[in-house]
Amino acid sequence: MEIITALYLIPVGISDAPLSDTLPSANVGIVRNIRHYIVENVRTARRFLKKCDRDIDIDSLTFCELNRHTEPRDVSAYLEPLRRGEPVGLMSEAGCPAVADPGAIVVGLAQREGLKVVPLVGPSSILMSLMASGFNGQGFAFHGYLPIEAAARAKAIKDLEAESARKNMTQIFIEAPYRNNKMLATLVSTLRGDTMLCVACDLTDPEHESVVSRPTSRWRGVKTDYDKRPAIFLIYSGSTVTL
Amino acid sequence: MEIITALYLIPVGISDAPLSDTLPSANVGIVRNIRHYIVENVRTARRFLKKCDRDIDIDSLTFCELNRHTEPRDVSAYLEPLRRGEPVGLMSEAGCPAVADPGAIVVGLAQREGLKVVPLVGPSSILMSLMASGFNGQGFAFHGYLPIEAAARAKAIKDLEAESARKNMTQIFIEAPYRNNKMLATLVSTLRGDTMLCVACDLTDPEHESVVSRPTSRWRGVKTDYDKRPAIFLIYSGSTVTL
Repeated sequence: MEIITALYLIPVGISDAPLSDTLPSANVGIVRNIRHYIVENVRTARRFLKKCDRDIDIDSLTFCELNRHTEPRDVSAYLEPLRRGEPVGLMSEAGCPAVADPGAIVVGLAQREGLKVVPLVGPSSILMSLMASGFNGQGFAFHGYLPIEAAARAKAIKDLEAESARKNMTQIFIEAPYRNNKMLATLVSTLRGDTMLCVACDLTDPEHESVVSRPTSRWRGVKTDYDKRPAIFLIYSGSTVTL
Repeated sequence: MEIITALYLIPVGISDAPLSDTLPSANVGIVRNIRHYIVENVRTARRFLKKCDRDIDIDSLTFCELNRHTEPRDVSAYLEPLRRGEPVGLMSEAGCPAVADPGAIVVGLAQREGLKVVPLVGPSSILMSLMASGFNGQGFAFHGYLPIEAAARAKAIKDLEAESARKNMTQIFIEAPYRNNKMLATLVSTLRGDTMLCVACDLTDPEHESVVSRPTSRWRGVKTDYDKRPAIFLIYSGSTVTL
């Protein structure tokens, strides 16, 4: 893949798997030719770049941090190199940038100015969990985090279950890893027994990856431990998936 | 990546780009070790496997076709090799299997029997267009095809626009490629001028890829031609994406 003047959206790994398990080799070629990065976290970005190319001269690169501590008015300046003709890379903490992270704000700015944006291929827990769930992949929605307060959370879960049935769509959401077990318990006690529930955990990790779909009633009493493991939850109460 | 006894979900390319642009090299290693395939289209599956490995002995492989012509009662037998301990590969016509295609039915069967399912990384026009749109990636929904009949289609578009504003979610859908231009004209005449509209076309194609996001009012009068090119449409009328 030849590099052009663009904002490259560069996925990073979501486990400790070798890069060649989850990233096309062309991504490494692109990374080698970018000097300017916009990243969610500088430390993990540097580590990823070193993993791509051990001989990379990290100190010759520039990094701008884009996360909840960033001043929105500062973001436009991050695109300066691109405006003068140099490619810029956007990287998230894990997975695909601008999905379930703050990266979309700078992609939106680039689009507004007519700057070219090139998305690269990489691992997405949303997409991979959907693929492996067996739930409807012809209609689905991702909701990020659900409310934390108990009554609001239960209502959100019931609403997603009803919407899944009404629209025949898979409903996907995430949780802070230390709350995974509590989320699963709440789902099991809140959903109807025949609503399908999938937990996908440690995706792309060759040793620990697990994607399990069962009716909610069959999650009851099953011993599982998702504590502090990266997980994603999917529910489906639509009519059976058709051909 | 070591191969195990599992149903492997194997993405295929979505353009004529070299495999190394859009697929991790580990996928090829997996493909080399699978003898049994469930595929949306045998001809394109064979072509993909030859591209992975020119020395592959295609005639020693078995292919079961899973598409709208398949009898649902025949699908369970497709998993026989897996039940006796041999890995099986699932491939779609393009992109990631079990997303926007009929593959989910066999994944659901595997899940029901407690058979292991392993999703591999590859290109998804849904995810890549979302990344590059600059629209909200923290909440989004994919709807497949919209209704074809004019009044039903206009209503579906207005409903998605309203839902995008109400839930702050990006709304994504596809169209048969020969109707892309008509879809764009309908969107431009149906959406509010300030609703954001993105068209992503020829994703991963190094020469023709284009992802353009603009307010609907700014699509008016712009000369474009998406006829018979693989495209995906995204609309967003939520509040500005935040950090």
